[in-house]
Amino acid sequence: MVKQEDDFKKVISHAKEYGYVFQSSEIYDGLSAVYDYAQNGAELKKNIREYWWKAMVQLNDNIVGLDSAIFMHPTVWKASGHVDAFNDPLIDNKDSKKRYRADVLVEDYTAKIEAKIDKEVAKAEKRFGDAFDKKQFLETNPRVVGYQEQINAILKRLGKSLENEDLVDVKNLIEELEIACPLSGSRNWTDVKQFNLMFGTKLGASADSAMDLYLRPETAQGIFVNFLNVQKSGRMKIPFGIAQVGKAFRNEIVARQFIFRQREFEQMEMQFFIRPGSQKEWYETWKEKRMAWHLSLGMGPENYRFHDHEKLAHYADAAADIEFKFPFGFKELEGIHSRTDFDLGSHEKYSGKKLQYFDPELNESYVPYVVETSIGLDRMFLAVFSNSLVEEELDNNTTRTVLKLPAVLAPVKAAVLPLVKKDGLPELAQEIIDDLKWDFNVVYDEKDAVGRRYRRQDANGTPFCITVDHQSLEDKTVTIRHRDTMEQQRVAISEVKAIIHKEVDMKSWLQRML
Amino acid sequence: MVKQEDDFKKVISHAKEYGYVFQSSEIYDGLSAVYDYAQNGAELKKNIREYWWKAMVQLNDNIVGLDSAIFMHPTVWKASGHVDAFNDPLIDNKDSKKRYRADVLVEDYTAKIEAKIDKEVAKAEKRFGDAFDKKQFLETNPRVVGYQEQINAILKRLGKSLENEDLVDVKNLIEELEIACPLSGSRNWTDVKQFNLMFGTKLGASADSAMDLYLRPETAQGIFVNFLNVQKSGRMKIPFGIAQVGKAFRNEIVARQFIFRQREFEQMEMQFFIRPGSQKEWYETWKEKRMAWHLSLGMGPENYRFHDHEKLAHYADAAADIEFKFPFGFKELEGIHSRTDFDLGSHEKYSGKKLQYFDPELNESYVPYVVETSIGLDRMFLAVFSNSLVEEELDNNTTRTVLKLPAVLAPVKAAVLPLVKKDGLPELAQEIIDDLKWDFNVVYDEKDAVGRRYRRQDANGTPFCITVDHQSLEDKTVTIRHRDTMEQQRVAISEVKAIIHKEVDMKSWLQRML
Repeated sequence: MVKQEDDFKKVISHAKEYGYVFQSSEIYDGLSAVYDYAQNGAELKKNIREYWWKAMVQLNDNIVGLDSAIFMHPTVWKASGHVDAFNDPLIDNKDSKKRYRADVLVEDYTAKIEAKIDKEVAKAEKRFGDAFDKKQFLETNPRVVGYQEQINAILKRLGKSLENEDLVDVKNLIEELEIACPLSGSRNWTDVKQFNLMFGTKLGASADSAMDLYLRPETAQGIFVNFLNVQKSGRMKIPFGIAQVGKAFRNEIVARQFIFRQREFEQMEMQFFIRPGSQKEWYETWKEKRMAWHLSLGMGPENYRFHDHEKLAHYADAAADIEFKFPFGFKELEGIHSRTDFDLGSHEKYSGKKLQYFDPELNESYVPYVVETSIGLDRMFLAVFSNSLVEEELDNNTTRTVLKLPAVLAPVKAAVLPLVKKDGLPELAQEIIDDLKWDFNVVYDEKDAVGRRYRRQDANGTPFCITVDHQSLEDKTVTIRHRDTMEQQRVAISEVKAIIHKEVDMKSWLQRML
Repeated sequence: MVKQEDDFKKVISHAKEYGYVFQSSEIYDGLSAVYDYAQNGAELKKNIREYWWKAMVQLNDNIVGLDSAIFMHPTVWKASGHVDAFNDPLIDNKDSKKRYRADVLVEDYTAKIEAKIDKEVAKAEKRFGDAFDKKQFLETNPRVVGYQEQINAILKRLGKSLENEDLVDVKNLIEELEIACPLSGSRNWTDVKQFNLMFGTKLGASADSAMDLYLRPETAQGIFVNFLNVQKSGRMKIPFGIAQVGKAFRNEIVARQFIFRQREFEQMEMQFFIRPGSQKEWYETWKEKRMAWHLSLGMGPENYRFHDHEKLAHYADAAADIEFKFPFGFKELEGIHSRTDFDLGSHEKYSGKKLQYFDPELNESYVPYVVETSIGLDRMFLAVFSNSLVEEELDNNTTRTVLKLPAVLAPVKAAVLPLVKKDGLPELAQEIIDDLKWDFNVVYDEKDAVGRRYRRQDANGTPFCITVDHQSLEDKTVTIRHRDTMEQQRVAISEVKAIIHKEVDMKSWLQRML
């Protein structure tokens, strides 16, 4: 599978070539860290969204959906803590005028020391061959031990300075390490300043009457402020959840890694409202349930792991990530957070409105606790796409590129191919399409030899090719070719629809969660 | 049906009470002209979106989807004309500091004269009774004729001033008519100024290095700038279309009529790329096709009409609206526009990139012409919701409120109701739910007498109620009650799923377009 750092470029170019992801505004030389989902990408993204929605909303009696606006009252972001605490420490180089995240500058510096360690290891490995004991070498080689201690000391000091919001010391650290601007080589730095990550805009026309708005940096707050309206109009009983999918925006200074970290992105979040005291239990339940959802897609249990947070955000009493093995290593794909009553409590304070639930069994009112599940749709897209892209050695010493998307998520379910462009085969192919298209996304392809068309559909991620040949005219059968196995079956045209349904219907995939 | 102006309030309050639409940030006293879709609204909106997507993308071999970002390169909006020409004329009252749309102030003034005409008509009607001939009265009563001429003269002058961008004359008109600020009663006005309707924000951290971005005011431009990438990677042949659904934003000064005109809204747009010269034909085709889509939902042909534009936007050579009969009268629901090569040509000019298509049949390259279909998802929601809300007189002299949503769009397809909360009926109801939920959104409801539950589900728009009683335990049958007819059938539990599928599956509804 294409998963090493080196192969990440292949993922990106394949995504463009096969109509999955384009750089935004490419004809205007692009907009940094913003991407457009092309014809196949739009369908894949839509299918992932639907797979999540069905699993969360349709299958859970006690979870309902929501679709709240991107614009919210600005006080929402005071209450949530984003106005005061959603910052990155930034520093400008006075000569290049280029701006950096101060913490990233320092981390990049440690990465260089790390690279020196790797070099020492590689040298020693070469020298000692099979006898090389990496663990022992790392622990005893004086140079390597020194490097490692240096890294530890740097990161410890950086962490402490940031925690104490001691930005002067962050600058001191940069100066002590003699970090230079990568662009100009200059060490002429400004002070470090906190920069808020929310995008601002103004509602209303005149400068004096305008209201400062933010583009939401997360969808969760839309759920919290609607909690009571949903609970009452939906007659919900605790425990219950509210789920939503939507755009969020963060003015990232360092946005890297393709669609992994974008300035505009899409979240799929669910807030589960529970009795205070039951958060431990629900936190564990949702960790399990979410992992089961991921595993149902069959992308390999070895590609997932939990990472429990030791350092917790101000609103959380427990937090874990589901990490996925991306082409650049294990990284966060989804977060499960026990958020206590922080958000609802804070909105009570700022709005002056009671956000309490009357619990008929306990006969008392309380502000519910919340366990959240939060997954990035774009990250999920990247996980599925990069994991599915495979270069396979075939028996005849050729290779084929195949996008082994889970069939349930594939943008196009079947391609219908007339063997030749004459003798009524295109017409029969079109008849088959006119029947299948009411159930699935299907395409017609008549160009090039059929073998080449198979390869094209493999690279496109299409699970089935249906080939119409002269025999089809006689006995109303076609060949179905399976993308992953390349196996071909001869079947009656009347059976085709059921065969595809069996492999692509969400229902049967979702049942794997059980 | 609830359709008169007076009943619009019922629509809005029903939307809140039954979890369809909430005011945004209500606990912070709301955010003007921004709304959140609640648990049922989110599903209805999602179903409308899917119904459009299937009809446009899945069923048309030559239309593909796209999901482009809200953020685009700022030059896109220079090229599209939005930076220079997407303005409202605004005027401030110096005493109240309140800002108004100058054209709306003038139109409100004519509305008052209109009200005087209505009053004269009402008086005369009362005086003459059955003998009253309204048409003749309007044409001959000197006072009424004078009022009408006054209105005509005002609107003619306003139209001409705006067309010539003569903002000085717009102010003169306001002063000549002695229009006062509705708030302060003052006639102390500033000059009229053009105000751009796009929301702005800044990308990047520092003030000097930041890039001015706009929140897109329409989704169409995302399609135009991706046209060539989609055509090439998708191997599309003209004629072909690109469709997308997404958020757009307009900083409206006067935002009224609930979700009809919001500052943040969702569009469903399709751009169809064609040979220059064939636009007349495709324009007519798409007018028909789109009307067929609307009619397939069965909301009554009498509620739709075409309105052909006489005055055309700078980019169009033909344009028509599909108007729908909203509670406040016939208003635009969808637009079909023949946009010529204006957009692609303009992007060629601004980007310096060729946006041409090589037509193998003609053996020549050209900038394609475009026919666009553009519908507001929120308006479609309002059309469906308001049209479906009915108060029915029943035989027993009571009334029932029922939301007769097209079953294919209903948020919840069925409610499962145990007749009583004991004797194993809730358990059997839950079993039925556990089977149905893989296929549909279903709910369980055990509270109150069954008649009251039926009413609740009627008001909620749920097409089917499935009632489990003691007989169910014996012979595995249930009662299915149909929302619109209130008819009840006794059927085997094993048949329930197929009965619901038959009524709610998109496939059969979409086939009504044929």
